[in-house]
Amino acid sequence: MNNAASRHPFDRAIALEPQGRANADGSLTYRGHTSPAYANMVGPFGGITAAQALQSVMLHPQLLGEPVAFTGNFAAAMRDGEFIVQATPARTNRSTQHWTITIRQADDQGDRATVFTATVLTARRRDTWGAVDVAVPEAPTPQNSAAVPALRELPEWFKRYEMRWVRGIIPDRWDGTESDSTSTLWARDELGRPLDFPALLAMCDVFYPRVWLRRAKRVPAGTVSMTVYFHVDAAGLADSGTGHVLCDARGQGFFGGFFDQAATLWSEQRRLLASSHQVVYYRE
Amino acid sequence: MNNAASRHPFDRAIALEPQGRANADGSLTYRGHTSPAYANMVGPFGGITAAQALQSVMLHPQLLGEPVAFTGNFAAAMRDGEFIVQATPARTNRSTQHWTITIRQADDQGDRATVFTATVLTARRRDTWGAVDVAVPEAPTPQNSAAVPALRELPEWFKRYEMRWVRGIIPDRWDGTESDSTSTLWARDELGRPLDFPALLAMCDVFYPRVWLRRAKRVPAGTVSMTVYFHVDAAGLADSGTGHVLCDARGQGFFGGFFDQAATLWSEQRRLLASSHQVVYYRE
Repeated sequence: MNNAASRHPFDRAIALEPQGRANADGSLTYRGHTSPAYANMVGPFGGITAAQALQSVMLHPQLLGEPVAFTGNFAAAMRDGEFIVQATPARTNRSTQHWTITIRQADDQGDRATVFTATVLTARRRDTWGAVDVAVPEAPTPQNSAAVPALRELPEWFKRYEMRWVRGIIPDRWDGTESDSTSTLWARDELGRPLDFPALLAMCDVFYPRVWLRRAKRVPAGTVSMTVYFHVDAAGLADSGTGHVLCDARGQGFFGGFFDQAATLWSEQRRLLASSHQVVYYRE
Repeated sequence: MNNAASRHPFDRAIALEPQGRANADGSLTYRGHTSPAYANMVGPFGGITAAQALQSVMLHPQLLGEPVAFTGNFAAAMRDGEFIVQATPARTNRSTQHWTITIRQADDQGDRATVFTATVLTARRRDTWGAVDVAVPEAPTPQNSAAVPALRELPEWFKRYEMRWVRGIIPDRWDGTESDSTSTLWARDELGRPLDFPALLAMCDVFYPRVWLRRAKRVPAGTVSMTVYFHVDAAGLADSGTGHVLCDARGQGFFGGFFDQAATLWSEQRRLLASSHQVVYYRE
C-alpha cells in the first residue's frame, strides 16, 4: 500500500493485517478494525463490511483472477472495534476459484462469534462475445442532478460519498403514502478515490431501505444478505476512473418481514459495472 | 420420511443420512448420493445439488424457522456417486439463523475435495405489511401452453418436470441470430409431488443457459453461483400444492466469460414464490 492510498479513509477502513502465514488448507487470517469514517447509525455501514471481506481475498497470496460474484451475510450486529477475517480458497480450478470468508468478533462473554459470512467467486476473464440486456436508468448528468438535502440525522458513511439524486430521494414526509420503490442516484467517492472492486462492492449497498420509500414509513430495517455480480474487469474499472457511478435500485417482493432489492450500477459512460441483489429484514 | 414420500425420485435424490451427532459448533455431517433420475448431460442437475445442500439444513435438529435466502456455488464438477454434506449453524439469533454448507467428494487422489459451498438464511417469519412490485409474466394457462418438443438429447432431469412453454423455448435453429434472452414456462413435478422449499429451490435452476437463446448458439456454459430469495412460507407453499409454477428468466449482462440471469417463480394463482439470480460461465 503506498502512502497516498493509505491516507484515504476507504483504504484505511479496508486495511487488514495478516496474522502469520496461510494454513495448509490455504486459509489466512487477518486483523481489521471498524472505521469511524464509515459508521452507520449503529455499527458500521454494511458496504464497508462487505468491502473488508472482499479485501481479505484481494490480499491473499493465492488469489486467482478477479472478483466475479460475491455473497455476504450480515449474521449479527458488528461492534465498533477489532475483528478477525478468515479467507479460505475452498476450491481452485484452472481459471476459477471459490472462496469462503468468515468475520468474527468477541461477544459479551469474550468468545469469538461469527458476525459475517461470505462466498466469493474469482476468475480469469476471457475475451468473449458480450451484451447488456438490462435497461440503462434514465438520468441527467450528475451536475444536473440534485444534491443531498441537509438532513439532520445523516450517518457518517453517507458523507464519504458525493451523491446526486435523480429520483427516489429519502422521503421528507413520513405520511404512509405508498409509492414506487425505485431510487436512482449518482454516487462518487467524496475525495475522488478511483473505483476498484472493494469500492464498487461497497457502493452496491449505498441505498437506504426500499421499504422506507415504498411506504413513506420509517420502520426498522437492515440488510441481511447481499449478492453482487461484477460485469467489468480491472481495466474496465480503470476506464471509469474517478467518474460518478449511476446507481439504481428497486424493491421486488415484500413478505413476512423480508424484502428483496434489485440494483444495477453503471459508469458515467453507461457501462454496466455490477448487478446486485439483497434481502432486507423489516418490521411491521 | 413416510413410505409414499420416500418412493418419489425427488425425495430419494435429497435423502441424506446423518453421520453421528452434531459437533460442539453445531456442524453436522451427512452422506448422500447423486441421483440418476436427476442426471444432467454430465454430472447432476445443478438444481438437485442445491436442493441436497438445503436439505442438510432442513433436517438439522437446530434449525430455526424457514429458508429466506440461499446462495450456492458450484465449485467443481460433481461425480456420480457418494458425497458428504456438512451443515453448520454459523450464527443463531432470536429470529434468524445463518448457515454455511460444504459438499465434498473424493477426488482422483482419493482426497476429499470441496465441490460445492453455500450459505443459507433461515428465519421465523413475522406478520407484516407486504407487496409485490415485480410484474407477473404474461402467460396463458398451462393447458394452453406448448408441451416440450421431442428433442433428441434431453437430459434425464428434464423428464422429472412437466414443462409447458410460453416463450423462449430452446432454439430449433442454431443459426446465430441474436434475440431476446427471456424464457417463460410452466413447470411441475412430473408425478405431482407437492412443492416444498428444496423442490422450489431446484426449480429455480430449470432454465437452460440464457446465452444459448440470446445468441442461438450452443456454446459451453454452466451455472457457477446461484442465489434464491424465498417470498413464501410453508403455508403459502402448501397453498400452491401440486399446481404448475410459472418460471421466468432473462439474461442481464454478458461480459468476459460470465453472464447473470434474473428469474422469478410464481404459483398458478400468480403469487410470487421466489426471485433468483445466477451467474453462468460461457465460452467464445
